[in-house]
Amino acid sequence: MVKVNRTGPAARLPKGFRDSCAEELRATRQILAKIREVYESYGFAELDTPAIEFTDALGKFLPDQDRPNEAVFSFQDEDEQWLSLRYDLTAPLARYVAENFDELPKPFRRYAVGPVWRNEKPGPGRFRQFVQFDADTVGTDNIAADAEFCMLAADTLEALGIERGRYVIKVSNRKIVEGVLEAIALTDPRRRLTVLRAIDKFDRLGLEGVRQLLGEGRKDESGDFTRGAELNKQQIAVLLAALQPPVSSASEARVRRSGFPSNELTDAGFGELTQIEDLVRAAGYAENSIRIDPTVVRGLEYYTGPVFEAELTFQAKNAAGEIIRFGSVGGGGRYDNLVERFIGEKVPATGFSIGVSRLQAALSALGRAEARTGTGPVLVLVMDKDRIADYQKLARRLRQPSDGGPPIRAEMYLGTAGMRAQMKYADKRGAPCVIIQGGEERAKGEVQIKDLIEGAKAAANIKDSKEWRERRPAQIAVAESNLLAAVREVLARHEA
Amino acid sequence: MVKVNRTGPAARLPKGFRDSCAEELRATRQILAKIREVYESYGFAELDTPAIEFTDALGKFLPDQDRPNEAVFSFQDEDEQWLSLRYDLTAPLARYVAENFDELPKPFRRYAVGPVWRNEKPGPGRFRQFVQFDADTVGTDNIAADAEFCMLAADTLEALGIERGRYVIKVSNRKIVEGVLEAIALTDPRRRLTVLRAIDKFDRLGLEGVRQLLGEGRKDESGDFTRGAELNKQQIAVLLAALQPPVSSASEARVRRSGFPSNELTDAGFGELTQIEDLVRAAGYAENSIRIDPTVVRGLEYYTGPVFEAELTFQAKNAAGEIIRFGSVGGGGRYDNLVERFIGEKVPATGFSIGVSRLQAALSALGRAEARTGTGPVLVLVMDKDRIADYQKLARRLRQPSDGGPPIRAEMYLGTAGMRAQMKYADKRGAPCVIIQGGEERAKGEVQIKDLIEGAKAAANIKDSKEWRERRPAQIAVAESNLLAAVREVLARHEA
Repeated sequence: MVKVNRTGPAARLPKGFRDSCAEELRATRQILAKIREVYESYGFAELDTPAIEFTDALGKFLPDQDRPNEAVFSFQDEDEQWLSLRYDLTAPLARYVAENFDELPKPFRRYAVGPVWRNEKPGPGRFRQFVQFDADTVGTDNIAADAEFCMLAADTLEALGIERGRYVIKVSNRKIVEGVLEAIALTDPRRRLTVLRAIDKFDRLGLEGVRQLLGEGRKDESGDFTRGAELNKQQIAVLLAALQPPVSSASEARVRRSGFPSNELTDAGFGELTQIEDLVRAAGYAENSIRIDPTVVRGLEYYTGPVFEAELTFQAKNAAGEIIRFGSVGGGGRYDNLVERFIGEKVPATGFSIGVSRLQAALSALGRAEARTGTGPVLVLVMDKDRIADYQKLARRLRQPSDGGPPIRAEMYLGTAGMRAQMKYADKRGAPCVIIQGGEERAKGEVQIKDLIEGAKAAANIKDSKEWRERRPAQIAVAESNLLAAVREVLARHEA
Repeated sequence: MVKVNRTGPAARLPKGFRDSCAEELRATRQILAKIREVYESYGFAELDTPAIEFTDALGKFLPDQDRPNEAVFSFQDEDEQWLSLRYDLTAPLARYVAENFDELPKPFRRYAVGPVWRNEKPGPGRFRQFVQFDADTVGTDNIAADAEFCMLAADTLEALGIERGRYVIKVSNRKIVEGVLEAIALTDPRRRLTVLRAIDKFDRLGLEGVRQLLGEGRKDESGDFTRGAELNKQQIAVLLAALQPPVSSASEARVRRSGFPSNELTDAGFGELTQIEDLVRAAGYAENSIRIDPTVVRGLEYYTGPVFEAELTFQAKNAAGEIIRFGSVGGGGRYDNLVERFIGEKVPATGFSIGVSRLQAALSALGRAEARTGTGPVLVLVMDKDRIADYQKLARRLRQPSDGGPPIRAEMYLGTAGMRAQMKYADKRGAPCVIIQGGEERAKGEVQIKDLIEGAKAAANIKDSKEWRERRPAQIAVAESNLLAAVREVLARHEA
């Protein structure tokens, strides 16, 4: 039991924050390296911006308030200026582009990876610090740049081992929704927001649920009532006809629906969607990889054109045996107004962002994230406290091997406890084997190597401690000069 | 010139924060990977903790204040509890160990890498966000753990290409200073602090400067006066005799100084120093690598025993031709009280921390940080806007090569400008070559490859545009089917 110092602080983290252990971090590193490889191959170059920005540069001051938006962690510096932790990687990019506009190549293509912070109510799987991996192309209105992000997203998921057919990149265009809202003459910003939120729930609530949210409202399973957008029947019919999935291709979507509202916005939106569709099909991405889907709305903030969402379509069972769907692991779109805030000039841009934690959870469920056991260090036991320098040397011979092979993780036991505690420590660290050299072995110029993984198997078949002592399973004596080769043999056995 | 939106926010970062570009980040990644390799080989396992902790868990509430210490970025959450950005990686480790004490192997050996934040006045080379790389061994008072950190520090610097003799790991023990202060009967905490600060300045001010700071005080070059600790002559003599470098070995330091104060603290301190010295010498680290130096005080906070400092001893010239010394790039020591704050039980611990940015600056001055030119992507020019899908395919053939070789970074130009702007973009991105396919080439089933690095050299020898057009230096036509092999040839030529 942990004792607690009642006058001291509590050892705990604020809600919504978490620690990550070595195994999880190793998997994260592998995933990030793979994404990086794909993004680099597309020509994106890395940029890192700090965690802290001026709040006004992030654009999170609400109108009529002198305090920043609550969803952002904010504080005042010594000059009373408001600073905030970045809540995404796009707002800092806009600040960077505006600050360095003249020097940057146009278009400017950068990727960035790092934590972002949200001061929101945490929930299961919802954290207040999480890692995003973004790529953006800034300074061009070329729709080929949007098409490229769809392909980049598909290539990235495939490089991570998610086969075609187990994911889908859904593409839509904000202009279509905006055009339909114009066609049904919905101008009230609050009701427009309610409509967008309703459409965003197609996946979860289905057609009927969305229809209710567009009309009077919807009562959920718990009996709670959500007020709807209060559209009339005809408005709802037009909206649903325009947006209802599945639509197999952008051009088809236009043609087969009589009564679809045509105006400047919807025409432009479908025109761009058709361009994207042509480009990705020409590059060999079929509908089982990149799909036109007008229900994709993608958040509610700054998008102005094409929007994309990367969704995993397979299911998996969690540790409790429940079926889980992972859904969206990334998304993005075109935002042509973010840099304009700073320099008063339109700088068109488009980008794609991956939610690394959710992707990692999915990969681990797929068994694509490498998990290994027995990956702890080889442990050199301390049998005689006066000979610590000798044990240190044994560890060093594994760590800096003279045979030209790869270094072997090794440590000398650094506690002060006896043999039993040392063996327990070796188990807890996942040591593949321990090295033992007592007075007897030393006199003979030998060391004992005890294979902990083989040993655990053998122990299951041993009746009593007498048999144990006689057989000493999975334990071998080797000449000190053979230490390196013998340990390599044990490790090779484990890998096989 | 950048236009500025006068009604919008300014595009700038708060003081003390900075952006990092791709080349710098690549070098950082290489350095971190090397450090990680060494730390892993010693058996340390990675742990990541979040950027935000409860302020009281970090221990930065000053007595008699209801606001956190100013050097820490702090803010209140919705429950009015104070949260802070971590200012180092040790305080979060103490929280983690206290929170998970029962489950952890003892000793607990973890490494961690990540940004930390200080709300301090920034200055040249002094940032408010910077990266630390820490390793700690928690739960043992074994001095071999301290000795190990000295060796780990030396091994790490050598693995990064800093030869023995160009760095030194200085080792001392807080108990020696504390014992000497006891011997001269200095108990006033303010004056003790002044003494520690004075000793810490040995490197910069020399013996005479320190003597003044121990006595009445010191006037610096600018005429500013710093008040001293006001010790008397005899106190100063004892202090300086005990601490004055160089001392070549711990045991020698004791013996050769008659009149050195001996008490429980200094005896314990020298005893531990001797143990460390014996262990590192037995492992083959001589004084040009690990050196006993009683002037090392190492900050003023939580250390309780051995302290170490990793110093680079070489000089380099900066871009302005000025000679710069890099000095300390890391340090650490034993802190036996940090976990106790939480659980009311002593949990001895020791650790070592590397300041990654300063180390990177030094490595880059040494030319050990890899710097490359022409590392941008191969650029496929867009000669005909209706054939974007074809150009996209050319980029893809380089990016996902069919010959089994490594992928080639490649992008299609995604702006909408003409040939001239495209070539300028290629230069700005550091493209090794561009791929050109106009109508003429397409009819012949060919592409043009223009080598930008060779081209720049050749251009220097060309007289006029007529000669240029005729010779087209460093530009070759190849069959489309030979694109991959031909580009690989260009890249190989650049590497040679």
